[in-house]
Amino acid sequence: MTVNVGVIGAGMIGQDHIRRLTYVLSGARVTAVTDVDLDRAKSAVERLPGVQVHETGQDLISDPGVDAIIVASWGPTHEEYVLAGIAAGKQVFCEKPLATTREACERILDAEVAAGRRLVMVGFMRRYDDGYRAMKEALDRGDIGAPLVFHSAHRNPTVPPSVTTDGVIADTCVHDIDVARFLLDSEVVAAQVFNPRRSSLAAEQLQDPLILLLEMANGALVDVEVAVNIDYGYDIRGEILGETGTVELAESSQIIVKRKGEYSGRVPTDWRERFIRAYDTEFQEWINAVAAGTSTGPSSWDGYAATVVTDAGSEAARTGQRVTVSMREQPDFYRVANGSGTGTD
Amino acid sequence: MTVNVGVIGAGMIGQDHIRRLTYVLSGARVTAVTDVDLDRAKSAVERLPGVQVHETGQDLISDPGVDAIIVASWGPTHEEYVLAGIAAGKQVFCEKPLATTREACERILDAEVAAGRRLVMVGFMRRYDDGYRAMKEALDRGDIGAPLVFHSAHRNPTVPPSVTTDGVIADTCVHDIDVARFLLDSEVVAAQVFNPRRSSLAAEQLQDPLILLLEMANGALVDVEVAVNIDYGYDIRGEILGETGTVELAESSQIIVKRKGEYSGRVPTDWRERFIRAYDTEFQEWINAVAAGTSTGPSSWDGYAATVVTDAGSEAARTGQRVTVSMREQPDFYRVANGSGTGTD
Amino acid sequence: MTVNVGVIGAGMIGQDHIRRLTYVLSGARVTAVTDVDLDRAKSAVERLPGVQVHETGQDLISDPGVDAIIVASWGPTHEEYVLAGIAAGKQVFCEKPLATTREACERILDAEVAAGRRLVMVGFMRRYDDGYRAMKEALDRGDIGAPLVFHSAHRNPTVPPSVTTDGVIADTCVHDIDVARFLLDSEVVAAQVFNPRRSSLAAEQLQDPLILLLEMANGALVDVEVAVNIDYGYDIRGEILGETGTVELAESSQIIVKRKGEYSGRVPTDWRERFIRAYDTEFQEWINAVAAGTSTGPSSWDGYAATVVTDAGSEAARTGQRVTVSMREQPDFYRVANGSGTGTD
Amino acid sequence: MTVNVGVIGAGMIGQDHIRRLTYVLSGARVTAVTDVDLDRAKSAVERLPGVQVHETGQDLISDPGVDAIIVASWGPTHEEYVLAGIAAGKQVFCEKPLATTREACERILDAEVAAGRRLVMVGFMRRYDDGYRAMKEALDRGDIGAPLVFHSAHRNPTVPPSVTTDGVIADTCVHDIDVARFLLDSEVVAAQVFNPRRSSLAAEQLQDPLILLLEMANGALVDVEVAVNIDYGYDIRGEILGETGTVELAESSQIIVKRKGEYSGRVPTDWRERFIRAYDTEFQEWINAVAAGTSTGPSSWDGYAATVVTDAGSEAARTGQRVTVSMREQPDFYRVANGSGTGTD
Repeated sequence: MTVNVGVIGAGMIGQDHIRRLTYVLSGARVTAVTDVDLDRAKSAVERLPGVQVHETGQDLISDPGVDAIIVASWGPTHEEYVLAGIAAGKQVFCEKPLATTREACERILDAEVAAGRRLVMVGFMRRYDDGYRAMKEALDRGDIGAPLVFHSAHRNPTVPPSVTTDGVIADTCVHDIDVARFLLDSEVVAAQVFNPRRSSLAAEQLQDPLILLLEMANGALVDVEVAVNIDYGYDIRGEILGETGTVELAESSQIIVKRKGEYSGRVPTDWRERFIRAYDTEFQEWINAVAAGTSTGPSSWDGYAATVVTDAGSEAARTGQRVTVSMREQPDFYRVANGSGTGTD
Repeated sequence: MTVNVGVIGAGMIGQDHIRRLTYVLSGARVTAVTDVDLDRAKSAVERLPGVQVHETGQDLISDPGVDAIIVASWGPTHEEYVLAGIAAGKQVFCEKPLATTREACERILDAEVAAGRRLVMVGFMRRYDDGYRAMKEALDRGDIGAPLVFHSAHRNPTVPPSVTTDGVIADTCVHDIDVARFLLDSEVVAAQVFNPRRSSLAAEQLQDPLILLLEMANGALVDVEVAVNIDYGYDIRGEILGETGTVELAESSQIIVKRKGEYSGRVPTDWRERFIRAYDTEFQEWINAVAAGTSTGPSSWDGYAATVVTDAGSEAARTGQRVTVSMREQPDFYRVANGSGTGTD
Repeated sequence: MTVNVGVIGAGMIGQDHIRRLTYVLSGARVTAVTDVDLDRAKSAVERLPGVQVHETGQDLISDPGVDAIIVASWGPTHEEYVLAGIAAGKQVFCEKPLATTREACERILDAEVAAGRRLVMVGFMRRYDDGYRAMKEALDRGDIGAPLVFHSAHRNPTVPPSVTTDGVIADTCVHDIDVARFLLDSEVVAAQVFNPRRSSLAAEQLQDPLILLLEMANGALVDVEVAVNIDYGYDIRGEILGETGTVELAESSQIIVKRKGEYSGRVPTDWRERFIRAYDTEFQEWINAVAAGTSTGPSSWDGYAATVVTDAGSEAARTGQRVTVSMREQPDFYRVANGSGTGTD
Repeated sequence: MTVNVGVIGAGMIGQDHIRRLTYVLSGARVTAVTDVDLDRAKSAVERLPGVQVHETGQDLISDPGVDAIIVASWGPTHEEYVLAGIAAGKQVFCEKPLATTREACERILDAEVAAGRRLVMVGFMRRYDDGYRAMKEALDRGDIGAPLVFHSAHRNPTVPPSVTTDGVIADTCVHDIDVARFLLDSEVVAAQVFNPRRSSLAAEQLQDPLILLLEMANGALVDVEVAVNIDYGYDIRGEILGETGTVELAESSQIIVKRKGEYSGRVPTDWRERFIRAYDTEFQEWINAVAAGTSTGPSSWDGYAATVVTDAGSEAARTGQRVTVSMREQPDFYRVANGSGTGTD
């Protein structure tokens, strides 16, 4: 009943997943690991006796002691490992992005459809956050009527000076894009980028903050404010305007302190603090699905859509124009899973 | 139609009322003033041409140019001026306390009943606060069923070192006592005082904080936490536990600021900031009633009840015992006004 | 010292101002009134003895018993009365709009500059709201660094079916436009309109909700969400993203009720409930300035800017394009007042 | 490294712990179970192959396949199993109460001290709640100075009609008593009970709500409002008044919904919803300590103190008097663990 998991990529995120599978979650164990830096792979499991360290991802995928695969390596390598996992008929959990180009994503879609069953889950953890789930439930219950506008704000205390505007769209906005598709149950059809006054805390080459405006197929509008050098904390805000009301994320502080003329609550320090439980839930649901022989969560289609939309966002940022988003027709194959977003198909 | 008001007492509070009647509210003007310190009286109206400065309160009360009287002098003088106002058939607004002894209060009750109509309003301004009024409305609508417990907290940033425990009960708790009677629509039947660990910020002779426990005739319990050297602000909290829900005062900050890892709102600095609008509303309603030839607001009975209960609170603090509160039978005369609390009779 | 005020226009708003000047505020009295419907004018002051009812606005303005004028008539008549007031050298409080065309506004600017002193205040009451004032103070203190983005949301429970998209921009968005200029201390340089999915509660011809995007001269961006059939209440939201933090309007409920599985606070029902105190403050400050022989508040320049920007907003809504805003050079005359927004010049 | 756990008692709580150890947490597996009703024991593990079902608790404790024991049986049986666990030198997690009499608790203290090391953890899960932990951290950081008063409120939507006032004190208040000792780091020295007006929703024999007043050795006062038929939800409130500020539990709703004139957040439905994560954390920390060969969490001393204080509370409720609490001298043995509360000794 215990799922044997192989982890490709032993960097910060891979190591965190190894810790989670070993010490936090139930029903899985890490049996194999690999990394482009073999020493790092060895070091990541040095206290875990019996974990096989493989020289390549392909070796790990072929290992009969591996039931399911986590791909947490460098983005450009994702396509290769995901395709190999599908070929091996093993369930794959792939960190975002599914693949770095639209074409690579389409090759994965083709392979999975050809395999005849879902084998891939993409790591969009916001769908597992209690707050977004409660928003989705409120929408589904009809509490506020049809959704018309989604205001999203993604605020990071700081980013390294090397981060570019393209990087902000591909790595930061991608979460807002995915959660917009999840909450509004609709695809993005156009993207546009607006440039407010730049923060003096942002590095020279970076447009920070920026506003990404998305038009959805069902007519809803999404405005994403992204500010990645905001200093005060890691703050993820979201509000949906419906026909008869709104639903928004509450503050997450556990306590209120009153002192020195103020009452105050805590803003999270970083994504770990804000989303650690979503990561735990995400992986537990994946383990449960793998153990049950089924699949769950954001699919290859969701990974494909995210890549296509972030590409459009980058083009919009570069050109200053409204960029329409065109996607291939969605295979029926993905319909159910895309509807529920987090259900088991 | 303009009400001509005479002000007895030109200290800080009297001066504030002069300012309010002159510059803020409609329908009244200050026509006379007096103070035990005549220079202070003169100085308080030096920019207001035509205001008569009287040598004594009695002179002011007899002045035909005075329609209505505000008593804002030292507590021990209240009885004399209120009785004189009643004798003159003029409406009197008396700052708390109505009088400093139970017997003095009873003489006022007797005089007013003998006069055959309400002439006295006592300055319990919390009944005019939007927050307490909304609590009262929620109770009256039955939103939370019958009220069972009222938790009140009265927090002051600091008090002068001369303040005594008796003074805290008579001058600070008195507001919580009155608002408990107002919200719960019932009289106090017993009082008890509990002494928590003393704050190191309190002066030697002062029990600070203290907890005053009141039993109401209808069985409801009231616990009043009083902390008068709390440093962080002037914070008035209140929550009523009903049979099926609760109602509590919301925070009053106008804005939320996010910075340095926190979101925060403002706590008021002092009673002026917290209750300035209640004072304005209180006086405007009094002026309107006087102009209309009627009376309104907390009555002599409310002033009497407050004095009797603060006496019991002081005895409870001194003896450590539960002290029962006995009041004379309420004249029918006060029934309507006590029910509505702020209605015009 | 009492200011004698003449009121032009005795419709709902004019009547409310008459009530306010008579029963709420201090230092002014209504001495004259007129309306295109003379019976309505008479009826508005039937309980106020001694108020002169004039046949025309010009008569009222010339009345030596009128020190200052309130223009609360139909928008297209504003220009005429404001110009006449300036010509008479009397202070004018003009409800928005200052005038219905850019050219009319410019004629008012010219007349006022020629008169050599400010005589006109325009009724943008949000500048007198405690919430917006606290936001402005937080900005001015530097609590959150330079402002980069202002998110504004203007939600009305319902509008009559006759309301058009142009009307929404001219009458509803105009407040967000003015408050954006006030908070960010910068002029609008371009406007664009986005159309989300329409609410099924909106009338046929109306784009509701809509998003108005404003670019400010200092680079800040403003997104205004306007939803005028939102059903749940009158909800004015605002948040400014600065370089190191944010400031937002708090909820305004006085109490929190817990019942039936929820805690809840009240959303205002309409603009009266939300802004009644701002109206009181606005008029009191105007009365005080008039009595002191000075002027205050939003100026003709602010009225001109509002009209120019709402024109651009309407064009943007019609064309779907980004529309640049060009304004004449600001006379030095208005510089000080525009900076402080609500200061007395 | 996996801890083999035997579970005594397969009722609702025991079943929940089996689920948690099997499907949620990492590092432990259930290897044995027993219950006074053997069929219930068998049914609780029917889907878990290889779990031994024992006829008696003693058999389970002696089972070499059991490393550590969970006691989730009927309260009066706790003493026997805890003593047997200590005798067997195995770690015991005992649900509250540690034992039902003071004398039984003292026999456990004696046995554990004689064993020379901590073997018992008592299930006071609030110490593992993120909210209370954050309160404790704020206190320990000195954010609000020395704690003076702790206001606690424990509200349950409903209880079965069989519940008695003694039962409310022993089973409900016990959590507030423990968390008061934890937060204030001090023992209870006296208890008193006050009876507000009874709720019409409470059964005949029940005093509901009630107020339990505790005096702590360090002088702090604790008032616990307990309302167990409050209908609106499961609501646990707590606020500590310190010398210079306060700290209170925040609301726990994930989202805010605006509709129908209100904004609202969710109040939890029951203790599972409110404290599920605290239970998970509590058990994970216990498993980790057992696996590491150490002990952690609330000790036998904490269990003893809780029983002594709830006894005093019951006497206070019965007599209406203030009841002093006397405890044996605390063995040094427990000092460290009691200080940190949740640290590993």
